[in-house]
Amino acid sequence: MDYQQLLENIYQEILPYAKEGKQADYIPELAKVNPDQFGMFLHSIYGETASLGSADTRFSIQSISKVFALAICLSIKGDELWKRVGREPSGTAFNSLIQLEIEKGVPRNPFVNAGAIVMADILLSHFENPEREFLNFVREVSGEPTIDYNREVAESEREFGYLNAAIANLLKYHGTIENDIESVLHFYFLMCSVEMSCRELSLAFLAFANHRRKFNYAGISLTASQVKRINAIMQTCGFYDEAGEFAYFVGLPGKSGVGGGIVAIHPLQYSVVVWSPRLNSKGNSVMGMKALELLTTETKESIF
Amino acid sequence: MDYQQLLENIYQEILPYAKEGKQADYIPELAKVNPDQFGMFLHSIYGETASLGSADTRFSIQSISKVFALAICLSIKGDELWKRVGREPSGTAFNSLIQLEIEKGVPRNPFVNAGAIVMADILLSHFENPEREFLNFVREVSGEPTIDYNREVAESEREFGYLNAAIANLLKYHGTIENDIESVLHFYFLMCSVEMSCRELSLAFLAFANHRRKFNYAGISLTASQVKRINAIMQTCGFYDEAGEFAYFVGLPGKSGVGGGIVAIHPLQYSVVVWSPRLNSKGNSVMGMKALELLTTETKESIF
Amino acid sequence: MDYQQLLENIYQEILPYAKEGKQADYIPELAKVNPDQFGMFLHSIYGETASLGSADTRFSIQSISKVFALAICLSIKGDELWKRVGREPSGTAFNSLIQLEIEKGVPRNPFVNAGAIVMADILLSHFENPEREFLNFVREVSGEPTIDYNREVAESEREFGYLNAAIANLLKYHGTIENDIESVLHFYFLMCSVEMSCRELSLAFLAFANHRRKFNYAGISLTASQVKRINAIMQTCGFYDEAGEFAYFVGLPGKSGVGGGIVAIHPLQYSVVVWSPRLNSKGNSVMGMKALELLTTETKESIF
Amino acid sequence: MDYQQLLENIYQEILPYAKEGKQADYIPELAKVNPDQFGMFLHSIYGETASLGSADTRFSIQSISKVFALAICLSIKGDELWKRVGREPSGTAFNSLIQLEIEKGVPRNPFVNAGAIVMADILLSHFENPEREFLNFVREVSGEPTIDYNREVAESEREFGYLNAAIANLLKYHGTIENDIESVLHFYFLMCSVEMSCRELSLAFLAFANHRRKFNYAGISLTASQVKRINAIMQTCGFYDEAGEFAYFVGLPGKSGVGGGIVAIHPLQYSVVVWSPRLNSKGNSVMGMKALELLTTETKESIF
Repeated sequence: MDYQQLLENIYQEILPYAKEGKQADYIPELAKVNPDQFGMFLHSIYGETASLGSADTRFSIQSISKVFALAICLSIKGDELWKRVGREPSGTAFNSLIQLEIEKGVPRNPFVNAGAIVMADILLSHFENPEREFLNFVREVSGEPTIDYNREVAESEREFGYLNAAIANLLKYHGTIENDIESVLHFYFLMCSVEMSCRELSLAFLAFANHRRKFNYAGISLTASQVKRINAIMQTCGFYDEAGEFAYFVGLPGKSGVGGGIVAIHPLQYSVVVWSPRLNSKGNSVMGMKALELLTTETKESIF
Repeated sequence: MDYQQLLENIYQEILPYAKEGKQADYIPELAKVNPDQFGMFLHSIYGETASLGSADTRFSIQSISKVFALAICLSIKGDELWKRVGREPSGTAFNSLIQLEIEKGVPRNPFVNAGAIVMADILLSHFENPEREFLNFVREVSGEPTIDYNREVAESEREFGYLNAAIANLLKYHGTIENDIESVLHFYFLMCSVEMSCRELSLAFLAFANHRRKFNYAGISLTASQVKRINAIMQTCGFYDEAGEFAYFVGLPGKSGVGGGIVAIHPLQYSVVVWSPRLNSKGNSVMGMKALELLTTETKESIF
Repeated sequence: MDYQQLLENIYQEILPYAKEGKQADYIPELAKVNPDQFGMFLHSIYGETASLGSADTRFSIQSISKVFALAICLSIKGDELWKRVGREPSGTAFNSLIQLEIEKGVPRNPFVNAGAIVMADILLSHFENPEREFLNFVREVSGEPTIDYNREVAESEREFGYLNAAIANLLKYHGTIENDIESVLHFYFLMCSVEMSCRELSLAFLAFANHRRKFNYAGISLTASQVKRINAIMQTCGFYDEAGEFAYFVGLPGKSGVGGGIVAIHPLQYSVVVWSPRLNSKGNSVMGMKALELLTTETKESIF
Repeated sequence: MDYQQLLENIYQEILPYAKEGKQADYIPELAKVNPDQFGMFLHSIYGETASLGSADTRFSIQSISKVFALAICLSIKGDELWKRVGREPSGTAFNSLIQLEIEKGVPRNPFVNAGAIVMADILLSHFENPEREFLNFVREVSGEPTIDYNREVAESEREFGYLNAAIANLLKYHGTIENDIESVLHFYFLMCSVEMSCRELSLAFLAFANHRRKFNYAGISLTASQVKRINAIMQTCGFYDEAGEFAYFVGLPGKSGVGGGIVAIHPLQYSVVVWSPRLNSKGNSVMGMKALELLTTETKESIF
């Protein structure tokens, strides 16, 4: 498979969508990003790589960080984790309080905001220095020690993060989080603020794609079975209210973020990351969704 | 892979669950079935087979019929189908009217009852003799011309099918179905009443597992891409409120029915069917779920 | 108080609204009514009367019939009635299935459609000839033996009554109704189809306004306390999602119907009925609401 | 009417309920109150009074303060107020976030917590010194200059007020409140913390019962029509999910608080306040509800 040629073909086909959608503007710091950027990077498990555009420009990974948080939480809690958060897809928008109230404070899955806030709480309770431990894991799994938080973005998000604050208060009311609300929200937004390039993310997610390789980074280890289960959760819950759409058109496990990044993996084949800040109405990158759909259409290979 | 040995090992492990759960009793005809039955059958795409217990006893396929209906609807409507029904997982119980009312009569996906009732309506509008056409398709895809409806079961279901009648009326109110309500419900329950054995169902679903082979049965043809998309929908929506659980523990696309049957496919590897009438609280076969979890655990192979 | 002069003043003030709103068109028979009609009639408990426009033209009383049904049900069941139906205002539209599903088949109050369908079921179970008994009660309480059902309207409503059929099926599913669905719906729509004039309705509701007088009509008797409690339910639940609006602007217990009629009572003072087929977006008569608001504004007297 | 004798009779009848229910314990400061207290006070508009038990003991008025806030907001905003908050009864529990999310941040009425939080925001924006102005109004309307906030209670409520904080954040997210969240919550809890006796509250609510008297206290003036409309809102929305129950059994406009106080008014007749800290499952005083039911049963007089 000539992945580089494939990506270049895809690029020609998605160019007409370059001006569709608009970047997230509810976070002032994110609104400053030039929306007309695009990058893509693919790592096969055999070491092949392919690259397009600004594949080395770092961007805010936002909700993609929830996969890293899940890996750490599953490593330290095992199946006990599922007493605090569910594994079912969410039938409503990613930030819905309705489901949380009906289900008495137990989030549907780790990738809705409520679920990720619970994971932030778990990490805060478990580690003496959770900020350092989370960053160490991300640096090790991607092999890039210069990756860091962007504290301006995190603070900017906290300042206008009324909906997440409402969620955190509701979780606290139901007794689902242990630590004080401001600490939990601070750490949640900090994890979201991590900045990585397509190339770096793609290497990090190769660890999930290639579950035959031992998963052990910065003291966080997972069995092959656990890695596959994280992949399953990406498949069923990775795209909020568009999970079915992504499964239908792309057919790979993946996770998106409002920074415009999307990761996807073909287990035992490759990991791929695409980034472009213009989003569709569901909060997913327009060019990114299109590029991944073309990738599995042209290769005629998906997990299905 | 010695599938026969594998299935026999699995059988030993699931025996302790043989008395857990209870069969569906809301349909009088189904309540008459001996609950202590078990069968399993696997077809690999290379022609290998493996069999356990009552693999040749026919049972009521119930909601598994929705996959056949989807195949026919997608064949005759193409992507126009998605104007009538969604592709997103449902965050609530399979028969919930709430979501339907909030979403103004467009069912979340083809596998919730509302979605399947819409498909029944589509088939009624399209075919001169929908009962015959549906049966012909099922007979051809499974290669077994004696498969038939059980009209007693269908009538028994209609008689007590108040919830489905509520759904059909709500769909009619929103203009989502064209035909008269009684005709639609009659045909819906008739499709659910088809009786097949594990062996027969397993051969039928091999057509979905092996999408390299041409899909064309009784005039219903699908492209490889369409077959894969049906598989994707089985993955995200096949188990009502337990889709995440099945993805997590089994990791295969599949579909269950309240008759106690479950089908699952490993694309380009095998199709497998397990049947046992005792159900868990979510309406899925207890021994069936356990058997499939063990199958992917022991083979160490799932789509993830 | 010169009620006749008062009504004439009100008429001048509401004339500008004569073309606002449109009549109910989901029931073909009702859509045939000339929308530009208006009538009003007031009976004081001291025997004074006042009349405006087409006060003697009969119209379809529709949901106003639910007050009669409640009077009969409370007479025959006493406080046992409240095990089958609630007394709380409904926070959603009058035909919402959501609340019914969340609350497991117990309607919020007797005036939402679900509640009235349960009352129809109660009457069917209690009387040998419920159609005759209901009509007898209405004829006696209004002192007018020629009042009758309009069976064309009732059949027309049943034919297109998908939403009410959905509700009845859901109630049956939850076991809240005993009789078969078609009988219950038939009788429900029949009660709604009764035709009365403003003058006749006004006399009928004088029995509720003047609870010092013995309430006993066609064998249906209520204590003064029971009559007052029916008035309380009219106050809190009589206008679906506009109950608060009516309480705020009119300040009297009342009940509206989609035929364009509204009754209101000032306990121990008067009963008043206004009719005009053009409805606002909530299903209440535009001129009727305005006329009643002016009535309590100009008299400076409401129950508050 | 010998009100004193009436109250003494009532007292004998409610004694059997003296140990039913339990006091609010989610606010540590309120949990310290001796639950076995009872007081009642009635003021007729002709100057008659009647008193029972600890009618001069001050207690935390809690949600009863929302009526004062509504009076002030309606005085300063007029009907513009209804652009920020609704007037419809709430079909769900008093603190439900679901309705607020569905209705995009506009609270159903001023007496659900969300509505009162919006009123706190309005007062903060309007007055230079809202704390002083609110207290001045309460002191003038009750004629008692020593009434004051209990700042320990207010702080105790804020500390554990996660649900109200969730609501405030959701309102801020929807743009319904202007001031910063902590200021709004601080002022909201402060208003709730006001301590008054049955006698003082009863005198304060006489201003609402007797709307023939000019309503003008500490610069806050309302027309007779506005006072009556506040009474109407008390009737339809004063008891959260028990509004219908109170209308049915008591038949007067009223407002309860979790401190165990309940006020009720019979327009142009009397205002009455009862207090007892043990609450029923809906958060209303057990003895208080019973006492008011008996009051209108024995006098045979309610607004209906």
